Amino acid sequence: MIAVDRDSPIGVFDSGLGGLTVAHAIMRQLPAESLVYFGDTARVPYGPKSPETVRRYSTEIGFYLIEQGVKAIVVACNTATAHALPQLRDELPVPVIGVVDPGARAAVKASRNGRIGVIATQGTVKSGAYVRAIEAASPSARVTALACPLFVPLVEEGWTEHEAARLVAREYLAPFAHHEVDTLVLGCTHYPLLKPLIREVVGPDVRLIDSAEETAADTRRMLMEHDLMAGPTASAAYRFIASDDPQQFLTLGKRFFGDAIEHVDVRTFG
Amino acid sequence: MIAVDRDSPIGVFDSGLGGLTVAHAIMRQLPAESLVYFGDTARVPYGPKSPETVRRYSTEIGFYLIEQGVKAIVVACNTATAHALPQLRDELPVPVIGVVDPGARAAVKASRNGRIGVIATQGTVKSGAYVRAIEAASPSARVTALACPLFVPLVEEGWTEHEAARLVAREYLAPFAHHEVDTLVLGCTHYPLLKPLIREVVGPDVRLIDSAEETAADTRRMLMEHDLMAGPTASAAYRFIASDDPQQFLTLGKRFFGDAIEHVDVRTFG
Repeated sequence: MIAVDRDSPIGVFDSGLGGLTVAHAIMRQLPAESLVYFGDTARVPYGPKSPETVRRYSTEIGFYLIEQGVKAIVVACNTATAHALPQLRDELPVPVIGVVDPGARAAVKASRNGRIGVIATQGTVKSGAYVRAIEAASPSARVTALACPLFVPLVEEGWTEHEAARLVAREYLAPFAHHEVDTLVLGCTHYPLLKPLIREVVGPDVRLIDSAEETAADTRRMLMEHDLMAGPTASAAYRFIASDDPQQFLTLGKRFFGDAIEHVDVRTFG
Repeated sequence: MIAVDRDSPIGVFDSGLGGLTVAHAIMRQLPAESLVYFGDTARVPYGPKSPETVRRYSTEIGFYLIEQGVKAIVVACNTATAHALPQLRDELPVPVIGVVDPGARAAVKASRNGRIGVIATQGTVKSGAYVRAIEAASPSARVTALACPLFVPLVEEGWTEHEAARLVAREYLAPFAHHEVDTLVLGCTHYPLLKPLIREVVGPDVRLIDSAEETAADTRRMLMEHDLMAGPTASAAYRFIASDDPQQFLTLGKRFFGDAIEHVDVRTFG
């Protein structure tokens, strides 16, 4: 660990814009904290890419955030968390948390019958990270994890209510009814934007777990544990950085974060 | 231009695997030519990314192919062609062709009423490259170019016959009927895999232009013009390189190229 100022920002990163939902939850729950958000929009998506490539990108971004003076890092991307969290914790000189554990614990708390579903990218599902995290929190839980590769492009196209999205959701989510799942983890930061459609397809009795709020609560715990909470006189500042076109980030980012995004810096890799 | 051996390979690159359809057409039309194919699978897709980022990636790959000893380069990616072709021609010491001009010329030849449609990625459409190329070949042509962002993920998911894909295609392609288009350019190397569905939606009277065959014909012209055709004793060899997981390239690549892919090397950037 390096010496850091409690009023330093928290670093938050994602493959693109989806992690802004996590940053937004942190902003609401911890209004004194400053944030530096990095979206790797030049290399998005991470979901279909190999564990090695995702680890390489995540480490690069982690060290870049350290250079920006962050006091802690939140990996706000499920795929990066699934593949890279242990390595980031080993290599980076500040505390690091991800989005998988908070979502897994929330699902265990919410489920009554112990049958939990997870929807995520191919990379996250293949990594087995959610199954491990849920079973660690509740060894008797029965977990069904399924990849939904078309959900991210549907959200990015803005077709969250389109009949085609409905057909896609019906096909992807059908197996959960068969497994009598009573709790479904939205294991990708894009998926909360499909919540109304997913709700319609799985019915009113299935609890939907969105890890953004849980991750913000975990962020608070991490800061307290390491005595890193911003002081009472701190004034929060938000900085946004993307690896591709800042204008696109600015326009689409408002869908996730609202009007607090006024300016986006660019930092390219490779 | 640098001195090169006529029996040196042709370099072919794409953001991912789609360009293998172009490589395959070159293999069939020019069986004596060796190929080095590079798929930038660690940074795919290029379609939604900014012109600057796509140019940076394309230049990096172009110089890498030069290091591999290629005698000429075929940019087998519509988005990379649209954003980066002029710069690649300026900077690289070998002849370079792209996929846009061949497709545009083929469309002009095929159309009877001069009303030509183009479907492509957001980047290709925004660049205006097809509109310029078609109007250069036929100043009286009327071009309608539309982005179809969900087509690539649908092809990658293998849902080329799915009812959801049909709904998506109907919505994307509806404007072409209104514009009385008689010829439609498939301006992305993934789209030929959706040909049956696109044919069904646009009807039997619209000609579908797939630039792979046209680009292979252009490759022959380029080699003849520069006196670079492989000699009669040349024996063709095919080499495949990806920036991400070679296993995935091997498995999915066969969908585009058949069994000639036996091995895939890895070269990472950044």
